[in-house]
Amino acid sequence: MNLPEIAKLGHIALVTPDMKKSLWFFKEVLGLEETEEVNGTVYLRAWGDFEHHSLSLTPGEKGRVDHIGWKAKRKEDVEGFAQLLVETGTEVNWVEKGDEAGQGRAIRFKLPSQHSFEIYFEMEKTLADKDSRSILKNQRHQSWRKGVSPRRIDHVNIATSMNVGEIHQYLSNQLGFKLREYVTDDKGEIAAAWMSVTNLVHDIAISPRPDEKTPNRLHHISYWLDDAGDLLRAADILSEEGIKFIGPGKHGISQAMYIYVIDPGSGCRVELFTGGYLIFEPDWEPVKWSAEERAVGNTYWGDTVQNKEANYMTIEA
Amino acid sequence: MNLPEIAKLGHIALVTPDMKKSLWFFKEVLGLEETEEVNGTVYLRAWGDFEHHSLSLTPGEKGRVDHIGWKAKRKEDVEGFAQLLVETGTEVNWVEKGDEAGQGRAIRFKLPSQHSFEIYFEMEKTLADKDSRSILKNQRHQSWRKGVSPRRIDHVNIATSMNVGEIHQYLSNQLGFKLREYVTDDKGEIAAAWMSVTNLVHDIAISPRPDEKTPNRLHHISYWLDDAGDLLRAADILSEEGIKFIGPGKHGISQAMYIYVIDPGSGCRVELFTGGYLIFEPDWEPVKWSAEERAVGNTYWGDTVQNKEANYMTIEA
Amino acid sequence: MNLPEIAKLGHIALVTPDMKKSLWFFKEVLGLEETEEVNGTVYLRAWGDFEHHSLSLTPGEKGRVDHIGWKAKRKEDVEGFAQLLVETGTEVNWVEKGDEAGQGRAIRFKLPSQHSFEIYFEMEKTLADKDSRSILKNQRHQSWRKGVSPRRIDHVNIATSMNVGEIHQYLSNQLGFKLREYVTDDKGEIAAAWMSVTNLVHDIAISPRPDEKTPNRLHHISYWLDDAGDLLRAADILSEEGIKFIGPGKHGISQAMYIYVIDPGSGCRVELFTGGYLIFEPDWEPVKWSAEERAVGNTYWGDTVQNKEANYMTIEA
Amino acid sequence: MNLPEIAKLGHIALVTPDMKKSLWFFKEVLGLEETEEVNGTVYLRAWGDFEHHSLSLTPGEKGRVDHIGWKAKRKEDVEGFAQLLVETGTEVNWVEKGDEAGQGRAIRFKLPSQHSFEIYFEMEKTLADKDSRSILKNQRHQSWRKGVSPRRIDHVNIATSMNVGEIHQYLSNQLGFKLREYVTDDKGEIAAAWMSVTNLVHDIAISPRPDEKTPNRLHHISYWLDDAGDLLRAADILSEEGIKFIGPGKHGISQAMYIYVIDPGSGCRVELFTGGYLIFEPDWEPVKWSAEERAVGNTYWGDTVQNKEANYMTIEA
Repeated sequence: MNLPEIAKLGHIALVTPDMKKSLWFFKEVLGLEETEEVNGTVYLRAWGDFEHHSLSLTPGEKGRVDHIGWKAKRKEDVEGFAQLLVETGTEVNWVEKGDEAGQGRAIRFKLPSQHSFEIYFEMEKTLADKDSRSILKNQRHQSWRKGVSPRRIDHVNIATSMNVGEIHQYLSNQLGFKLREYVTDDKGEIAAAWMSVTNLVHDIAISPRPDEKTPNRLHHISYWLDDAGDLLRAADILSEEGIKFIGPGKHGISQAMYIYVIDPGSGCRVELFTGGYLIFEPDWEPVKWSAEERAVGNTYWGDTVQNKEANYMTIEA
Repeated sequence: MNLPEIAKLGHIALVTPDMKKSLWFFKEVLGLEETEEVNGTVYLRAWGDFEHHSLSLTPGEKGRVDHIGWKAKRKEDVEGFAQLLVETGTEVNWVEKGDEAGQGRAIRFKLPSQHSFEIYFEMEKTLADKDSRSILKNQRHQSWRKGVSPRRIDHVNIATSMNVGEIHQYLSNQLGFKLREYVTDDKGEIAAAWMSVTNLVHDIAISPRPDEKTPNRLHHISYWLDDAGDLLRAADILSEEGIKFIGPGKHGISQAMYIYVIDPGSGCRVELFTGGYLIFEPDWEPVKWSAEERAVGNTYWGDTVQNKEANYMTIEA
Repeated sequence: MNLPEIAKLGHIALVTPDMKKSLWFFKEVLGLEETEEVNGTVYLRAWGDFEHHSLSLTPGEKGRVDHIGWKAKRKEDVEGFAQLLVETGTEVNWVEKGDEAGQGRAIRFKLPSQHSFEIYFEMEKTLADKDSRSILKNQRHQSWRKGVSPRRIDHVNIATSMNVGEIHQYLSNQLGFKLREYVTDDKGEIAAAWMSVTNLVHDIAISPRPDEKTPNRLHHISYWLDDAGDLLRAADILSEEGIKFIGPGKHGISQAMYIYVIDPGSGCRVELFTGGYLIFEPDWEPVKWSAEERAVGNTYWGDTVQNKEANYMTIEA
Repeated sequence: MNLPEIAKLGHIALVTPDMKKSLWFFKEVLGLEETEEVNGTVYLRAWGDFEHHSLSLTPGEKGRVDHIGWKAKRKEDVEGFAQLLVETGTEVNWVEKGDEAGQGRAIRFKLPSQHSFEIYFEMEKTLADKDSRSILKNQRHQSWRKGVSPRRIDHVNIATSMNVGEIHQYLSNQLGFKLREYVTDDKGEIAAAWMSVTNLVHDIAISPRPDEKTPNRLHHISYWLDDAGDLLRAADILSEEGIKFIGPGKHGISQAMYIYVIDPGSGCRVELFTGGYLIFEPDWEPVKWSAEERAVGNTYWGDTVQNKEANYMTIEA
């Protein structure tokens, strides 16, 4: 039997203490489409996301990520991962079909850093309502209907007070993520890592937050825009809404342009992301940025996180 | 043992009757970088291509594609493909290490349509000279050094007078390409196909050319630009060079923006390509465009091939 | 006393047989803001227009332009133009303050080609409602609120069956428009002219339509977009609304990018316009494009009017 | 007789202690075209500048602006300004035809702040050499030939330790510049001003530098790019050249996007500038930004001067 494999990042299950604000932010400002509301949870996706949802919003006491959902490559890989994880000492819980709207049977488990992951395969590929449907047969909703209007979910960046290298090992060994780029500390150890199972530079990144009290933090989730011009338009829209943000700027690592903005409801940081490069090489040599090179890796140019530390909070994931 | 797999499109080996014009077009107008010249063949790549070359130019009597090079996923897959192909009746020839500059041992064979393919694994990942090297550790050359300045090779589109469905079957069964989008004729048969082994909508497409006298034609090769603005800049540059082109426009199929321009040396059509979407779904349902829907599939908007039939020649591949 | 002068194009008074469709087109698709409705006439402007309106829509039997409104440089210039025009044999009618919403006393008169012009000075500079107001003190409404979202009115292009050179003379001698670029016919006579009183290449253009039965036709009105990316976004939006258009392309004359689209209510052609150059030279030598050079002048590149003659209708102006 | 008028900003005469570095910066990095070298002074312009030069570089002991050249509206306005200025107590010196390459007879004088101005009318409108000439009849050189490739000179921003309101009065009363936007200090006095004689928001701005030892400082000169995408491309190019810069960001005042970069030869700050709005209203009410509103006026979004004080030097003008 083939080893089980992850195909892609599927969705983020976000809990928010202020549904109204979070809905305003994700639906009106970012312009995500609502698929449906089930039992108080609102399921959202971008106009170019094919599956039922790439983000869910659930009311709760405080802002946190309930789980990060990954789609397996084959249906049997969900069971495959369950076995493999249990064998290597990870506790696995099953989620039944429909427990999460649109989704089939799935497993949930925690990384050594206590970040909560879900692996599913079956997910409805919901068609759009007539009034929002695109004339393009390969696109769910019309683009440009409201707000920033990103195309699709892109990646997730988790932060941890644990040793980043350990999490990197777990993601690599247990889940098959490949290391694409990394930053080293003064001792040459991995201080931050960008990893993927797809041709993207990263489906997941791990950022060090040694001073956080819990090891399972979220740095940000990210939605993809098609074009640099869209990112500049997003800057106008956010400014007019009175929402502060970091950027625009361009990372050296991933070569992508970015804006970082925080959902005022949940405190979840969202990276609006465009450009960058793809990795097709099967024999990719991970790109190493030393402590000295890290500045360019972080910020090739533009407005940068370093300028605005106050925004640099994280939520639990 | 795993089935052998193709990882990505590697390069196009182009033969040109007018090296001077082809070098001018690819180096000065498009702005590809020359890696080296060996025995009269000039090896080129875009600033974001990691391997030794994505295009080679060799002098010859007439414009034609000598072969289309694909990189295997694992080193042993070259041998694996050799066995598999021979077993199923395809004749396979070996190319020795160094026969093609930068490249290890590889195989060559022909599709049923007589298109010549190569599968290799080992290829030098040449660093750039100091004067053209990027300060980014994940990028070979500086961008924007000359001309259109595309980032990387994107895909190849082969044309054939044979039944497209047959070629589609061969690419799927023998080589593992997945069908992503397709157009059907009046009878519901596959009339054109877009297939990939990566997250791109297509690494290869098959276009029907029933009236061509030979079945092994090239429709175009394609280089990727990062941004819509780059495509408009390319339109200015080509216009100033007095080079006619088709576009800019936007395909429905792939959702990408395009310009089609012909190398005046070889007659090879090149698509400058940007935008579009990626496919991460492992359970992708190929998108079907019926004969009626084909117009939108071809041209969502903009200047289109239909306007300028004179440009619609093909070369042998 | 100074000669009276025109400062800028103010507005187009459009009559439409289908208010519902025209309102949908201009408000929902293009995204113009409604200032107010008075006596059945709806007054619109773009988010960056400072005055009360740049377009008015009035129900009527057929699609036509009632008048083209020009703002005088000084208040006394309205009276100044009235005297000057009467002296040189043009009949002048006065429009009283408030006859047109937001506007002071103004004159109306006809060109030799029977195109109806208005000259006004006083016009309310209406502030936007709170919900649409920009945080920028130099901008009326928020941008990006709906649809294509152009910044401001740009120019008008009138068509005539009369001799273009004669109209050019009238616009130059009576109204002070300066010739910026022109196309000549086989005999070297002016066949089309681009003229302005501002730093724009044209506030008004004159296009030959020798076969039209009336001399007072409208070729198009034009709204300005800030950026090439906005024009490509407009192409997506129009396509999703099922509206045909010509473009995107780039003119040689004016160097601007364009999309031509027709209001399905009135038949009025609207050019979405971006880029181009400004003329600051007081000693500008009008740029001449001979009959042979006209093709490049018309279309530097891209989708062009020549491809789609069916769209090439005009309405009365 | 009409009052003399200024038509536009013509050129900046820059003195540099390091010609080699300045030539590298302006010709190779920014990509200005060299018109000619006369007596050690190199005359440059952008591809869309029509006149002989918009910048001259002359070797000298230290970086400074020798004069800022303004083109009069009519030939007789040069003499007209000479008379008017002398009458109101400004000392005027004549520069003979050819003293500055390509230029006719001109006057030079100093503002109360000792900034040196020149007013000329006659200037060669040099055609480009064949190898760099555009196929467009309304454009001098081909665009995109090298480096950042701005279209034209845009504006100048002078800094002074004197009272800004006084300089504003002089520019308004003696030279006819109109106030377009301004910032007030705590007492409601003009603290910074943006003024123009064209439809641009500013041909000249005045910035307060109370702590400078001399009153005649230069804040920056500015070149115009056509498009936001061009500014992002400039950011890449500057980064690869190892040149630090501020931006990209977007001003509230003028609504333009910017990058600030310093010529390493002369210390002259150059603003790369795109977007923004035009003022066609003859009855424009200057836009006032109070001390509280100034932050948004300065930086609508993006990387800002405030972050990098070290770059905030000025040179003498």
